[in-house]
Amino acid sequence: MSRLKVTHAVPIWRKEDRTGHIYRVAAEIMCRRGFEATSMNEIADAVGLTKAGIYHYIRGKEDLLFEIMSFGMDMVDQDVMAPAQRIADPGERLRAIVERHARRIMEQGGAVTILLEEMQALSAAHRRVIRRRKRAYFEMLRSTLEELSRQGRLRGVDPTVAAFSLFGMLLWPARWYRREGKLTPEQAASELAEVALNGVMKARPSGSKLARAETVNRPGMGRATGLRARNRGPLRIGG
Amino acid sequence: MSRLKVTHAVPIWRKEDRTGHIYRVAAEIMCRRGFEATSMNEIADAVGLTKAGIYHYIRGKEDLLFEIMSFGMDMVDQDVMAPAQRIADPGERLRAIVERHARRIMEQGGAVTILLEEMQALSAAHRRVIRRRKRAYFEMLRSTLEELSRQGRLRGVDPTVAAFSLFGMLLWPARWYRREGKLTPEQAASELAEVALNGVMKARPSGSKLARAETVNRPGMGRATGLRARNRGPLRIGG
Repeated sequence: MSRLKVTHAVPIWRKEDRTGHIYRVAAEIMCRRGFEATSMNEIADAVGLTKAGIYHYIRGKEDLLFEIMSFGMDMVDQDVMAPAQRIADPGERLRAIVERHARRIMEQGGAVTILLEEMQALSAAHRRVIRRRKRAYFEMLRSTLEELSRQGRLRGVDPTVAAFSLFGMLLWPARWYRREGKLTPEQAASELAEVALNGVMKARPSGSKLARAETVNRPGMGRATGLRARNRGPLRIGG
Repeated sequence: MSRLKVTHAVPIWRKEDRTGHIYRVAAEIMCRRGFEATSMNEIADAVGLTKAGIYHYIRGKEDLLFEIMSFGMDMVDQDVMAPAQRIADPGERLRAIVERHARRIMEQGGAVTILLEEMQALSAAHRRVIRRRKRAYFEMLRSTLEELSRQGRLRGVDPTVAAFSLFGMLLWPARWYRREGKLTPEQAASELAEVALNGVMKARPSGSKLARAETVNRPGMGRATGLRARNRGPLRIGG
């Protein structure tokens, strides 16, 4: 099997255009080989373009990295932030942020997410742009937690620590989740959101409508045991 | 200010030997510049050795990366796994794992943690060694969660998803925590463990001794508000 074989599945949420496809394949190669070690030739080969052809789309490697990161932040904007911002209740908004973003990573593969950490490889101007976009996302998450805190629904934890803890949880599937496993992206993202929300929010009063609904839908460990039994495949950890 | 200036603080837990110091400084440079882009010369300069001098300690760059990763896993073994394995109660053991590891990352700086992801830059033989050690750690965490599940103390989540969610939370401080901020490593690690444990474990019965102790020590949001107010400094996100 060629080292550069790309097992890139068709995304579920939208028909992907040619440029988006190149970004995603390039991200997968860069993650596997390392950004510095990857050549434009390897990327051109993997997407079936000549070297001249790929330069029709992209000016060079640093520019490609910036475009991949921008593509990733566009997805965050469109698929996470925009729909979440329409949700008035901060608890429901928080669930939407975590579940949507985690699911997106699980469905698409996490290469773009991992590449978003290659900040030192960017030019200073590009780094400022990406940092500003990351900060806007972080501030949206933190302000949601602060809203929960004002409503008395946050646990006794600092909203900043809570926000970073949630980011760790929701971005980490980029490193561990495998679509070939037994847990669907929907299931895994929903479980992850459950852990995330319980981690930062106070327990709902036991007589509330939501708490009762939960009891009906989740009888003891039954559901989880089923998932566990089906998710006993080999695990790949840390590459 | 030189790009290679290393703001490396003296570790709190033990007097560090020369080799450990080199590993940590090298990890900080590699994180900042990228592994491929870093030369042995830059590392030698930063630790005040000649190029000949550094080759007294290390055979080459791949070998250095492997040694840094092994050094990191040694710390996990000694400072997290060994003490945690002596704790009989799985809930307390889980708290010890998360709190000890997060605190260690916060006290030491996260460069070694981040470098532990550079698996693709290792030789195949070295990669197998590190992967086996990571897996042992992961299995310890997962078996602790399964023990909690058997005792009926785990929420209705899959222990594997829960284990990965916890790893995301506890390793992420490598990317966001700054010692110069207002939250000490002890405070931040303790808050993070609070989020982590509440995320995966069922709420303690409200009449229990632990639950009552918590009420006494954490009157509403008072404590958290204090921490929040003191942690309002600028945040650095994503490098």
